[in-house]
Amino acid sequence: MNFRSVRMVRVFLSQRDQKVEELLNDLHDRWKIHGVTVYQGVAGFGGSRKIRTARILDVSYDLPVTVEFYDSPERIDQVLSELEGIKPGHVVSWLADMWMGETP
Amino acid sequence: MNFRSVRMVRVFLSQRDQKVEELLNDLHDRWKIHGVTVYQGVAGFGGSRKIRTARILDVSYDLPVTVEFYDSPERIDQVLSELEGIKPGHVVSWLADMWMGETP
Amino acid sequence: MNFRSVRMVRVFLSQRDQKVEELLNDLHDRWKIHGVTVYQGVAGFGGSRKIRTARILDVSYDLPVTVEFYDSPERIDQVLSELEGIKPGHVVSWLADMWMGETP
Repeated sequence: MNFRSVRMVRVFLSQRDQKVEELLNDLHDRWKIHGVTVYQGVAGFGGSRKIRTARILDVSYDLPVTVEFYDSPERIDQVLSELEGIKPGHVVSWLADMWMGETP
Repeated sequence: MNFRSVRMVRVFLSQRDQKVEELLNDLHDRWKIHGVTVYQGVAGFGGSRKIRTARILDVSYDLPVTVEFYDSPERIDQVLSELEGIKPGHVVSWLADMWMGETP
Repeated sequence: MNFRSVRMVRVFLSQRDQKVEELLNDLHDRWKIHGVTVYQGVAGFGGSRKIRTARILDVSYDLPVTVEFYDSPERIDQVLSELEGIKPGHVVSWLADMWMGETP
């Protein structure tokens, strides 16, 4: 089998965060990241300590949004070094193996 | 760049599990965990080997729910050592780097 | 505490991919994987570079779908070595610790 080393990143934001769309576009247009997936959580809490949940009948809720992406460690280091507008402590990353299929 | 070592945790539960809300509250009130996100899956299976999927027209379905959180390895070790009511084999964790922004 | 080494895997597919259901069934029936969860993203992009998002009023959208599973490193190696029909670069894996409860 054939693997390539990558760095996985998860950025923890929320629905009201204007940053989600901007980050998605930056990762696409500027950084040409391999792949990005945006997930919406159904509950959670972050720095504000306020628990958000989709079960509460509150039209103004602000659910968690997680942006996940991966690419070579070098490219990810570069992305992280130029991240703007994201609060420290909201970005977590780790090394992983990207499967490249069977070696021919 | 400035990183801090954290331990990521994913706990695999299901919608019917009374544990989801209790765990979220414990992580918030008792453990004061840095951040927690709860995701709902659209399909999956666990220990019971029964495949659950949102596509089946069954009002009684019981979809997967994943609780993700991270904090310092020391705090996570303490949380895991006092976890109650969660089946062994349903909690997975690994070390990661939390990005703390540019060093000033 | 009692931990067992596992390999986490995330496979990045999309809604229109016929592969999602086939993979879920294979992991269940053939590989008897410990646990599998399928998540649907709300936005993202992959190899095609086309950004998909649930916000666009387009009935034909094709949102990201992530299949997550974990088991012993040996079993995961075997699964990955026989994966078929999945594009290289769409599978990421890493080692993690599965919590097995308190040692009695």
